[in-house]
Amino acid sequence: MKVIILGGDGFCGWPSALHLSNIGHDVVIVDNLSRRKIDIELEVESLTPIRPMGERIAAWKEVSGRDIRFIDMNIGKDYQELVDLIDAENPDTIIHFAEQRAAPYSMKSARHKRYTVDNNLNATNDVLAAIVETGKDIHLVHLGTMGVYGYGTAGMKIPEGYLKIKVETSEGLKDQEILYPANPGSIYHMTKTQDQLFFHFYNKNDKVKITDLHQGIVWGTQTSETKRDERLINRFDYDGDYGTVLNRFLMQAAVGYPLTVHGTGGQTRAFIHIQDTVRCIQLAVEKPPADGEKVRIINQMTETHRVRDLARMIADMTNVEVQNVSNPRNEADENELHVENDTFLEMGLEPITLAEGLMEEVTEIARAYSDRCDTSKIPCVSYWGKGREDAASQSDADATAAE
Amino acid sequence: MKVIILGGDGFCGWPSALHLSNIGHDVVIVDNLSRRKIDIELEVESLTPIRPMGERIAAWKEVSGRDIRFIDMNIGKDYQELVDLIDAENPDTIIHFAEQRAAPYSMKSARHKRYTVDNNLNATNDVLAAIVETGKDIHLVHLGTMGVYGYGTAGMKIPEGYLKIKVETSEGLKDQEILYPANPGSIYHMTKTQDQLFFHFYNKNDKVKITDLHQGIVWGTQTSETKRDERLINRFDYDGDYGTVLNRFLMQAAVGYPLTVHGTGGQTRAFIHIQDTVRCIQLAVEKPPADGEKVRIINQMTETHRVRDLARMIADMTNVEVQNVSNPRNEADENELHVENDTFLEMGLEPITLAEGLMEEVTEIARAYSDRCDTSKIPCVSYWGKGREDAASQSDADATAAE
Repeated sequence: MKVIILGGDGFCGWPSALHLSNIGHDVVIVDNLSRRKIDIELEVESLTPIRPMGERIAAWKEVSGRDIRFIDMNIGKDYQELVDLIDAENPDTIIHFAEQRAAPYSMKSARHKRYTVDNNLNATNDVLAAIVETGKDIHLVHLGTMGVYGYGTAGMKIPEGYLKIKVETSEGLKDQEILYPANPGSIYHMTKTQDQLFFHFYNKNDKVKITDLHQGIVWGTQTSETKRDERLINRFDYDGDYGTVLNRFLMQAAVGYPLTVHGTGGQTRAFIHIQDTVRCIQLAVEKPPADGEKVRIINQMTETHRVRDLARMIADMTNVEVQNVSNPRNEADENELHVENDTFLEMGLEPITLAEGLMEEVTEIARAYSDRCDTSKIPCVSYWGKGREDAASQSDADATAAE
Repeated sequence: MKVIILGGDGFCGWPSALHLSNIGHDVVIVDNLSRRKIDIELEVESLTPIRPMGERIAAWKEVSGRDIRFIDMNIGKDYQELVDLIDAENPDTIIHFAEQRAAPYSMKSARHKRYTVDNNLNATNDVLAAIVETGKDIHLVHLGTMGVYGYGTAGMKIPEGYLKIKVETSEGLKDQEILYPANPGSIYHMTKTQDQLFFHFYNKNDKVKITDLHQGIVWGTQTSETKRDERLINRFDYDGDYGTVLNRFLMQAAVGYPLTVHGTGGQTRAFIHIQDTVRCIQLAVEKPPADGEKVRIINQMTETHRVRDLARMIADMTNVEVQNVSNPRNEADENELHVENDTFLEMGLEPITLAEGLMEEVTEIARAYSDRCDTSKIPCVSYWGKGREDAASQSDADATAAE
C-alpha cells in the first residue's frame, strides 16, 4: 500500500513509518518538524540522540534497502500543497499524527492554548477537506486519545468509542447508540474531542473512511526497526511538558532523584508499548472500514495502572524513593478505569506488558543516556488554572517546611 | 452594564447592540466587517440599504442621544488587541456573534470550509482564553444554533442543551445527564458543536460563566430600535447562501417568482423573530449564571413549521406559486421537531408569531425594496457533496424536460 504519514518525524510517527516501510508498504513522511522546534523553545532535548530527518532516512536505506521520502509541509496551513501531494501520490491511506500532543504544553499560557487549537483543528479539517476535494477513496487513520473519554463512569467499562444508552421518549425507553460523551481534561484533549466531530461529519456527509485510534499513554522507546541502527533511535521525552509520567519516573530513577507522584497517585491511566502502537497502526491501515461504514473507533491500550503503583514498580527496580507533590492538573485524585480493548486483541495484537519491558527502559535508555539529562526539566510547571497554581505554591511551601 | 458585542455589525449583532444601548447598557461593538466583505465576494447586497458603521452609530446618537463605540478587530486573529480591550473596558458581559453563520456558504468549497473552521473555532477559543488571561469575572453569552441537535429523535422533545440518559453499569441502569449528542448537518453547524466543547472545558477548568443560546432560524428584519431611522435599518439577506428559507420565499413572492421548496418541504424548522432575538439576548445578559454553575444552555426559538407550510402561508398572502426543486442538503426529506423552550418564556418572553408578523415583512421589506433585488442570486447553488450535485443536475434536467 501507499501510505502518507503526517507527523512522521514524531515519537509515534517515526517508528510507525519504519514499521510500515519494513513490511513492504510505500511510505511518504510529511512533517513540519514542529516537535523538534518546540524542544528549542522549551530548552530541552530528547534524552536519546535523535538524528535529523535526512540522516534518519539515509540510515534506513542503508540497513533496509528501502526508500522513505520526506516532505517538509505544515499541515493545517499549506493546504494546496497537501492537495497536490495527494493528487500526485494517490495514497491508499493517510495516517494523521500531525497534532500538538502534550496536555501540559497546551496549558502553559494563552499562546500555547491558541497554538494547540489552531494547529490541531485546522490540521484535521485540512486533511479531511483535501481528501474530499481530490475525490479519492482514501482511508484516514487518526491517532486520538483515551483522554476523550474523561476517565469514564463508575461501574462501567469504557467502550470502543460508542456508548449504548436508553432515552425517555413518548413511546417509552428507547435504545440509542451515541459517540461516548466527551469530557476532556486539557486543551490538548479538548481538540481531540473536537476532532471526533470532524470525523463524524465528514464520514456522514462525504463518506470518508476513517479509523480513530483512542490511544493510552505510550511507554517504551524502541521498536524492532528503530533498534537496527543508533541513527534510527526514537525520541525519549522526560521533561515536564512532553515526558509522560512513566518516562519522568524512569529518568528520576536513573539519576537518583525521588519519583515525584502528583497528589495521591491514585489516578488510573491506560498504557501501551510503542512496539504495540506500531503494530496497531499496521492492523488499522491494513483493514480499512467498508464503504458507508461509520467512523471506526478502536481503543489502543493494553493495560491500566495507578500512578502510585507505577512509581512503586520503578522504585523497587531501582532503589529510589517515592515523593508525593501537589497535582498541577484539575482532576480527581483517585479514579477507576476499565477499558474495552477487544478489537486489536481479536485482530492479533499480543501485548508487551510493563512487567516484562520496563527494566529494559531503565538500563538501555534511561541509564544509558543519563549523561544527556537536564534534571531541572523534569518537574511539570504547567498549571491547569489559577487555583492549581496557588495550591501548588502553598503545598510546595508546606513540603519545604516539613523537611 | 458594560457589554462588548463581538460581531456587532451583523444581522443579530446590530439590533442587539441598539436594543441593549436603548435600555441603558454601555455598548462597545467589535467587528471586522467580514459579513459585508463576503457580500462583495458573493456579488450580492442586503436587500435593505444598510449603512456603513460610522453612519449607523452617528444616526443612533442622533435619535437616542446614546453613544455606541466601534472597534474594527479580527476576533480569532488579533488576540493581544482583544486582551487589551477587555483589560481597558472591564466589561460585565461579552456577547459572541463573531462567527461565519451560513451553512450553505460553509459548504461551497474547500476554501469556505477552511475559512469557517479557522474563523469560528479560533474566535471562540480566543475569547475564552482572553477572559481567562485577564482573570476577570465576565459572563460570555454565545449565539449557538438549534442545528447542533441534528433535528432530534423521534418521539422526544429536544431539551435545552442537556439530555438525561440511562446507562448500563455493573450496578444496573444508572441515570446520567450529558450534553445532547451532536449531529451537525454542515461545516457551519459542526463548528457550533465544537464550540460547545470549548464552553464545557473552559467552564469546568476555569469556571468561566457561559450562556449558550441555541437559536432557531431568525425571521423578520426590523426591531423597534432599527425602525427609528432608515439609517439604522437591519440587513435582509435573500441570496442562496445567507438568505434563510423564509427570506428567499418572501423575495420570490415580492418579485413574482415561484417559491422554490427543496425536496418535499417536509423539513421542520424552528423559528424566532429578530425582535424576540434581541429580547432573549437582553434576558440572557441580565441573568448571568451563578459562580460554579455549568454552561447554561437555552433554546432560543418560539415556533416550528414545515417548510412547505411556510411556502403555503406566503403563497396564500401573495398569490404566487410553489415549485418543488431538488434539495442541495444531505438530510431527510421529512422530520418531526419538538423543542423545549420554557426558559425564556418563564423569563418573560412574549413571542411574535409568524401569523401576525409575516405580512409586514412582505409589504415593508420585500416589496418596498424589491427594486434592489438581483433575482439570479436567490437559488441555493451550494451542494453538500458530489452526490447531491449530481442529483440536482439530474433533477433540474427532469424539470426542464417536463416543461
